[in-house]
Amino acid sequence: MLHVDILTLFPRICEGALSESMLRKAQERGHARLQAHDLRAWATDKHRITDDAPYGGGQGMVLKPEPIFAAVEDLRARVGAERTRIVYLSPAGRRLSHAVAQEYAENAGHLILIAGHYEGVDQRVIDHLVDEEISIGDFVLTNGAIAAVVLTDAIVRLIPGVLGDDASAADDSFATGLLEFPHYTRPMEFRGWSVPEILLSGHHAEIAKWRREQALNRTTLQRPDLLDEPL
Amino acid sequence: MLHVDILTLFPRICEGALSESMLRKAQERGHARLQAHDLRAWATDKHRITDDAPYGGGQGMVLKPEPIFAAVEDLRARVGAERTRIVYLSPAGRRLSHAVAQEYAENAGHLILIAGHYEGVDQRVIDHLVDEEISIGDFVLTNGAIAAVVLTDAIVRLIPGVLGDDASAADDSFATGLLEFPHYTRPMEFRGWSVPEILLSGHHAEIAKWRREQALNRTTLQRPDLLDEPL
Repeated sequence: MLHVDILTLFPRICEGALSESMLRKAQERGHARLQAHDLRAWATDKHRITDDAPYGGGQGMVLKPEPIFAAVEDLRARVGAERTRIVYLSPAGRRLSHAVAQEYAENAGHLILIAGHYEGVDQRVIDHLVDEEISIGDFVLTNGAIAAVVLTDAIVRLIPGVLGDDASAADDSFATGLLEFPHYTRPMEFRGWSVPEILLSGHHAEIAKWRREQALNRTTLQRPDLLDEPL
Repeated sequence: MLHVDILTLFPRICEGALSESMLRKAQERGHARLQAHDLRAWATDKHRITDDAPYGGGQGMVLKPEPIFAAVEDLRARVGAERTRIVYLSPAGRRLSHAVAQEYAENAGHLILIAGHYEGVDQRVIDHLVDEEISIGDFVLTNGAIAAVVLTDAIVRLIPGVLGDDASAADDSFATGLLEFPHYTRPMEFRGWSVPEILLSGHHAEIAKWRREQALNRTTLQRPDLLDEPL
């Protein structure tokens, strides 16, 4: 059972994603418990202030340290997991990959994801509270809540039992080291474009060979760098 | 004005994100119009079937071509933009980066994002309908709808006027070629940890110099690869 708590000023950004499709099923089946929390619940002043202007000047607002420390300490005590990891979503972090998601899925316990907003979070949160900064890529989002959902989905689907019969994580791009082969479904012919004949042949060994070749060709063409990487 | 239409089996995954924070403001200010659509609305049979088993066997389901072609043709006609780009979110695609987001933001018009699910989409959609496949990173998500939200956010925030006074995209990580400098806000001292004195000095030139040094140090330490890249 993996507990994921997302701390954000915009819990509604996460709520739809956490309660639909695979993430809903993972919770129904008891593999995960996923919640987005409004950081304002841990603000201590009567105006529920969670951010303030940056010292030294500049644009944007910075998330204050007190509500974040209070929220993390509160959630940690509530869940009482043996192993809690505090992650800050940041473009400066370690890049999310299949291997990083696998590492988190295997160390399931309690994950607290801190989602920044605009200019980010007071550095003392990163220096003294956060275990790791994770980046989902070399681009900037206005809201870390979106990145927190990406990280949650990438991890939860790799928890054994979560995907069930719906799909197999072992066949994924990156798990095999290759991009996926092309997929076809009905109709057999659509606007003059036909399904490759081999897929209609019923020869399972030949189909498996064709798929492997297609995956290799596609990887060579679109992502040759993947072929150089050790698995 | 950028129109973004997301085609998915799970529009609720996107709805919270598209209607909060910056993406809400961008729409209120007339910079963008963002919608998630249930692909089932374009299914032609009475059971509203949008996916089917893969030809050649295997696990998972594949999105059928007919509803996707119908949806794209319908939305394209409805919006009537001069320039429509059809994007399929896929781990095999071109990697999303700040530069890719910038390219889409500058060519604002009509963007139709096709979000796959489990095993993906019939290859004829990719071969004959899609202009470009985009990947948000080397990891797999159960649902392309989450990736579609990431792409939308990364693009919309770069449309001139969207960020307004809230923050400046020009100071971003990746836009400057460096990771961001550390931020601090009140209180000046928290649990014994103080804000760096330079930020309290009022010497704007010194503060700017310190920030530049911090950004450089951080980049050298955490992402030396960024220093080798041309801007």
